[in-house]
Amino acid sequence: MRAVDIIMNKRVGKELSREEIAFLIEGYVAGEIPDYQVAAWAMAVFFQGMSPAETAALTGVMLKSGAVIDLSGISGPFVDKHSTGGVGDKTSLILAPLAASLGIRDPMMSGRALGHTGGTLDKLEAIPGYRTNLSVEQFRSIIRQNGFVMTGQTKDIVPADKLLYALRDVTATVESIPLITASILSKKAAEGADALVLDVKFGSGAFMQKVEDAERLARSLVDTGKAMGKRIIALLTDMDEPLGRMVGNFLEVEESLDCLEGKGPGDLMEVTLELAARMAMLGGMAAGPEEGRRLCEESLAGGRPRQLFLDNIQSQGGDVKQFLELRGNYRPEYRGEVRAKQPGYITRINAGQVGRAGVLLGVGRNRTGDSVSPTAGIQLHRKRGDPVAAGDLIMTVWARDAEGLNTSLPLLAEAVEYGRTAPAPRSLVLKEII
Amino acid sequence: MRAVDIIMNKRVGKELSREEIAFLIEGYVAGEIPDYQVAAWAMAVFFQGMSPAETAALTGVMLKSGAVIDLSGISGPFVDKHSTGGVGDKTSLILAPLAASLGIRDPMMSGRALGHTGGTLDKLEAIPGYRTNLSVEQFRSIIRQNGFVMTGQTKDIVPADKLLYALRDVTATVESIPLITASILSKKAAEGADALVLDVKFGSGAFMQKVEDAERLARSLVDTGKAMGKRIIALLTDMDEPLGRMVGNFLEVEESLDCLEGKGPGDLMEVTLELAARMAMLGGMAAGPEEGRRLCEESLAGGRPRQLFLDNIQSQGGDVKQFLELRGNYRPEYRGEVRAKQPGYITRINAGQVGRAGVLLGVGRNRTGDSVSPTAGIQLHRKRGDPVAAGDLIMTVWARDAEGLNTSLPLLAEAVEYGRTAPAPRSLVLKEII
Repeated sequence: MRAVDIIMNKRVGKELSREEIAFLIEGYVAGEIPDYQVAAWAMAVFFQGMSPAETAALTGVMLKSGAVIDLSGISGPFVDKHSTGGVGDKTSLILAPLAASLGIRDPMMSGRALGHTGGTLDKLEAIPGYRTNLSVEQFRSIIRQNGFVMTGQTKDIVPADKLLYALRDVTATVESIPLITASILSKKAAEGADALVLDVKFGSGAFMQKVEDAERLARSLVDTGKAMGKRIIALLTDMDEPLGRMVGNFLEVEESLDCLEGKGPGDLMEVTLELAARMAMLGGMAAGPEEGRRLCEESLAGGRPRQLFLDNIQSQGGDVKQFLELRGNYRPEYRGEVRAKQPGYITRINAGQVGRAGVLLGVGRNRTGDSVSPTAGIQLHRKRGDPVAAGDLIMTVWARDAEGLNTSLPLLAEAVEYGRTAPAPRSLVLKEII
Repeated sequence: MRAVDIIMNKRVGKELSREEIAFLIEGYVAGEIPDYQVAAWAMAVFFQGMSPAETAALTGVMLKSGAVIDLSGISGPFVDKHSTGGVGDKTSLILAPLAASLGIRDPMMSGRALGHTGGTLDKLEAIPGYRTNLSVEQFRSIIRQNGFVMTGQTKDIVPADKLLYALRDVTATVESIPLITASILSKKAAEGADALVLDVKFGSGAFMQKVEDAERLARSLVDTGKAMGKRIIALLTDMDEPLGRMVGNFLEVEESLDCLEGKGPGDLMEVTLELAARMAMLGGMAAGPEEGRRLCEESLAGGRPRQLFLDNIQSQGGDVKQFLELRGNYRPEYRGEVRAKQPGYITRINAGQVGRAGVLLGVGRNRTGDSVSPTAGIQLHRKRGDPVAAGDLIMTVWARDAEGLNTSLPLLAEAVEYGRTAPAPRSLVLKEII
């Protein structure tokens, strides 16, 4: 078998065998197949696509390139949620304790902010003392004790993805549905989840801006997940406007606690409860989404998810007392505002634009390895559909430095679109893909 | 400017600017842009193509990556011929002295056999003493003296092509019309030719087997050549059957001398004269192909091209006396035959198959750097359209070793196709692209 023939087979649109895919990826990880051949192959995959069988084979080969978290001896069901990333998307922080309160175990391995999208690890690390670099033993111990655990990937999880993603990033081959599918599912399979709810977002703040692209990705994820024997459901959700009212690391932890206390904003609760309902279904706690949602609402009202969240902070090294004291006060020095330019209705707040402004403020990063600010961020006082008078406060903005504040304010002002009449209300959950 | 953005622009089908192409190729040659980015770009070019302006820009950038032969002080016109490669294609050896006899100067830089196709340098080196690694000073001196010179590329000619071709070869990106165009034309421009006749072949023994692909390549070559200010004509010629009756290194030199003595086989003379007529046109010696062909036939009849060929052998270090003594006798030890399996007509002798058998005999090579035999080869006693009785001699086969002979004979027997009736005669020159 030769790598050049495998590239050629893909270039001419043939379906690759599992053996061919394993030869290429295992050879790449072993340093025997050079990156230029894998780069050419990835570009051929971009143009020719992959069949469900090929995508499942690639996912399996990538999964096998590294360690799989051993959850033996801990009773399930193990259900996780994965989001394709957004702006103000803090649903993970609410879902994990909520699912745990129903008896589901959520072995959550998350990522960091990159580009305009936020990252769960950066949000959690805004909590003083919170640790996201757990050992496997700590991972096992905390999930057993609290029902969920929130950490970064250990180094030995899917090394093939780390290599392949770094290569795709510099060869303009990120946006390939089968390569994205294999990247997501290999990591999720490695963390030990045996059922998965996917939040596939579309709109200006999403990775896939067009709904058709998001649906193709959701279809690929669900079909490939099933081919690997996982229970899996995807929701297509709207990420054209930031989710909730807070965009920032500590700000989003605060808003998550609000949600767990029954004080969350409607849009964020809507998406969270629809996702949680599917986790309940996949965990065997509910027969359908309505029953799942009812269970979740009852559990939230009882206060147990909030307690589990605080217990988890304690377990992962965070200082609960200090966290609760900081709530509402932990803000950086530089503060600005965005006010309504004109009267009327807000028809849109462009999430992508808000996310890019967030990078300037210190919420996120453009390059892996850049530091972020725990406290910087944006509070949205008005959102899509709200009436405004000229000069009304739309956003409060906090930055880690003056330059970040000055450069982000014009972007944030531009992100707001106005109209004479209220836009038609729309549901944030567009579709379920099963 | 970033390489990843250039790859992305090509991936989404945008036209790259000259600056973008220069950034990528110059950076690659300088070792600043890694091969994996160039590999991904080449695959994107394979799928998205390039406009004539992009192809011309790439050709120009590649040309500028190295030295250009200085022909100043030598009077032109400088006209060369380039073939896309075939089996039994020795037209270069006949054309150069023929064109020189008309007052054209042909600064010919050729390549070596690779895969099933033969190489002019390997043929010339079968002449005892003949040198194909001339210095620029020798190149200038010989073309001034004999009107033509036949050598390999100097190391400093188009280094970008050497790098890029090696990368394309291992990343399944060879078959891209614009990349092939830039590779051919940058090298031809570097050797100093200001007019070019292209022999773009189709059929089983050609690089482009389908006539439509060959025509697309011819069109791209002609359009790009014109955009670079060159006078250029392409002929689409049939390479489904080996050209002439000899396939082998010394064997083809012998057959070239036969042609220069008026004893060449009809198919080979047909293609040679049609190409030569275009060289005469581009050199300003003839107004049209008919006049060009007549001039060439007259010159051949006068014997001057033959004398120029022998003079060139002398100038390039060859031993003319020994060469003429070896003629007809210089054969290797191992000899075999292919005889007709059945009576009827030969409908086809598959040139690709003959070329691959030739590699086993020692005529060509599968990998750059492998040695070839000067004497191994195939003589075709019968060709397409000839009637045969069962057992008639179709080929005499000479090999450098027994294994080569034994493995090639079945391939050669398979290359012959039979029919009950004679196939319709067809012209080898299908079309002129101007």
